[in-house]
Amino acid sequence: MIERARILDAGDPLAQYRDRFHVPEGVIYLDGNSLGCLPKATPDRLVEVVQGEWGEGLIRSWNAAGWIDLPQRVGAKIAPLIGAQPHEVIVADSVSVNLFKLISAALMMRPGRKVVLSEPGNFPTDIYMIEGLEAQGLAERGLASRENLIDALNDDVALLLLTHAHYKTGELFDMAALTEAAHQAGALVLWDLSHSGGALPIDLNACGADFAVGCGYKYFNGGPGAPAYAFIAERHHGDVRQPLSGWMGHARPFAFSDDYEPAPGVDRLLCGTPGILGLAALEVGVDLIAEIGIERLHAKSQALSEFFRQCLAEADLDMDLVSPSDPAKRGSQLSFRHPEAYAICQALIARGVIGDFRDPDILRFGFAPAYLRFADMAEAVRHLAEVLETGEWQRAEFRERAAVT
Amino acid sequence: MIERARILDAGDPLAQYRDRFHVPEGVIYLDGNSLGCLPKATPDRLVEVVQGEWGEGLIRSWNAAGWIDLPQRVGAKIAPLIGAQPHEVIVADSVSVNLFKLISAALMMRPGRKVVLSEPGNFPTDIYMIEGLEAQGLAERGLASRENLIDALNDDVALLLLTHAHYKTGELFDMAALTEAAHQAGALVLWDLSHSGGALPIDLNACGADFAVGCGYKYFNGGPGAPAYAFIAERHHGDVRQPLSGWMGHARPFAFSDDYEPAPGVDRLLCGTPGILGLAALEVGVDLIAEIGIERLHAKSQALSEFFRQCLAEADLDMDLVSPSDPAKRGSQLSFRHPEAYAICQALIARGVIGDFRDPDILRFGFAPAYLRFADMAEAVRHLAEVLETGEWQRAEFRERAAVT
Repeated sequence: MIERARILDAGDPLAQYRDRFHVPEGVIYLDGNSLGCLPKATPDRLVEVVQGEWGEGLIRSWNAAGWIDLPQRVGAKIAPLIGAQPHEVIVADSVSVNLFKLISAALMMRPGRKVVLSEPGNFPTDIYMIEGLEAQGLAERGLASRENLIDALNDDVALLLLTHAHYKTGELFDMAALTEAAHQAGALVLWDLSHSGGALPIDLNACGADFAVGCGYKYFNGGPGAPAYAFIAERHHGDVRQPLSGWMGHARPFAFSDDYEPAPGVDRLLCGTPGILGLAALEVGVDLIAEIGIERLHAKSQALSEFFRQCLAEADLDMDLVSPSDPAKRGSQLSFRHPEAYAICQALIARGVIGDFRDPDILRFGFAPAYLRFADMAEAVRHLAEVLETGEWQRAEFRERAAVT
Repeated sequence: MIERARILDAGDPLAQYRDRFHVPEGVIYLDGNSLGCLPKATPDRLVEVVQGEWGEGLIRSWNAAGWIDLPQRVGAKIAPLIGAQPHEVIVADSVSVNLFKLISAALMMRPGRKVVLSEPGNFPTDIYMIEGLEAQGLAERGLASRENLIDALNDDVALLLLTHAHYKTGELFDMAALTEAAHQAGALVLWDLSHSGGALPIDLNACGADFAVGCGYKYFNGGPGAPAYAFIAERHHGDVRQPLSGWMGHARPFAFSDDYEPAPGVDRLLCGTPGILGLAALEVGVDLIAEIGIERLHAKSQALSEFFRQCLAEADLDMDLVSPSDPAKRGSQLSFRHPEAYAICQALIARGVIGDFRDPDILRFGFAPAYLRFADMAEAVRHLAEVLETGEWQRAEFRERAAVT
């Protein structure tokens, strides 16, 4: 397999981009869907921001270095990668906080309806933010399994909130069909793009989506806890009111008025003072993904994961795939169920093959196409085969579950 | 004056600490109350976090580099500086977002009461977050002027929300007396320490405070848009429920359960994934302030501002002081009213004396005691006198108001 991998790498039009990232020596990193690698340009940019803009420019840099426009500037760069117009996307806060803003906004736009519908097993924070509004008495949490979602779209549903690519399995929702069904039922739709944005083409506006949020630290390589992005379709720009109405989302923040007046459009999603270090690092990652191009990234992502499966087959490893076998129906990951998933994951990490484990029994491999090679696939499968054949995962140090994984 | 200043600087026990900060050449920085200066240790720490922990450690650094505990670790370091126990303070999100969490929590703890009482002219975001909950139908905004606040504490008031040091005038509230009065009326109290934390000793627990929030980028020198801190008195740890119930505030985030269960104590104030770059930079600033010592900082802050007033008197500049003349009753700033405040501020900035302007007619000078010298006071007043005497503030470029200041 390693020979086939080398041929594929030699013909890979994205091969050159691996060198734009710092990939640690001796590591095969199959967890870029959890925390993306460091772009090599990021440290220099941060030195410039910290020493130049903060250290020398101080408070003047809010204008002189354009800090005040950074949330909009980075949002506008993300926009074409998710099928949005530049003025429909802004970077602010975390995915969780943006979920709260947009769920709240949807509930205010659908008075008389209280249900926010999602699926059980959605990424926890999505469900927990519905629960937060439930604790306030403003929402009712509705959960229906994938196959029953459309039937569950009744007159009580204000909002359908789904994660485009499932964090465990990578299974994709049909964004256009579900958005259409929700609209038919009079509900709005909020797409969480955390596990798909930056890895595959998304067309929010073609699908008629109302709202979206997404993560900066996975495929956009913005760094640990990078700020998140949020989208509001232009047709809703006048109607959205969200309760996290901080001063940076005011129409004239520096008038210091006692009365809140929302800024136009997506700017009203801003709340407190934006974190400039996080935003500056995210911009570097977004620029790089935009330069490589989302269509090419998607093509390589599919090729990588299909090659990984071929390597598994050739090694005669009969792993229990829980991701869709059709690459068009999954995000940039493959997940497998195994009763010893945790110990196997630990044994692989000890060998420098970093994937991750998701409770209770999922072994998850992410294929960040910007910096992975086909050779990494062949090598990862070789390690996996050795771990399974030697039974080294049975060693005590791999079986002991840490409190946090 | 400059001779007296030199004598004072020679006897200043904190003089050595100026060298621990990057203060730009030719700048007298009287705006550390808006954005603190860069500690010289910050760039190296960020390089370590970015290249070492993120670049090399990747996802493993959540445990190996202690990222997962950073919100608690930095919170515990801030705690003694504000009169709190280490487990009562956490760093998360922005001041605005934390205000929303704690106002919401207070409303849930006082069912049947809806009024959140503050003063007109409080920092806008404090008032706007009340308005956000008002838009949700959960709160009623109550505003009463300083002298009428205690009378306004009636049976409808769930929460008294005040900023300890006023952002424009620097005037301090009597934290103990107002907390006591609010409790007498059955209300809870939330103190915004943004303009006092890190500059003067605060004793939240001695005052019986319930909740507090504060800013990381002013006197704590955490960098532009640094994350904020939040305090919950231990006696409330079991009762607080807040609606921004994201996965990081879950008792077991990595169990990925569908059902939210709040983490113990202040940990439940966490929402999304914490921004590590911002947290790491903040930690450096907090460490430095803790090392210098809050009592010494306060003593120097008072000496600096009093010396500034002496310089003004000696230069025969009759400025209209709007800050309390008693240094015990104000934060680390002096503010003056002048009809041409904006133009004067611009003319001073052009000379390298950076203070700031607050709408409509306030000229505000902040005295960050960690890195300012008495000589800076004498020089700043000399420049102010020249700007006023020559009338150079009347030049067109200084009078033209920018959209954002």
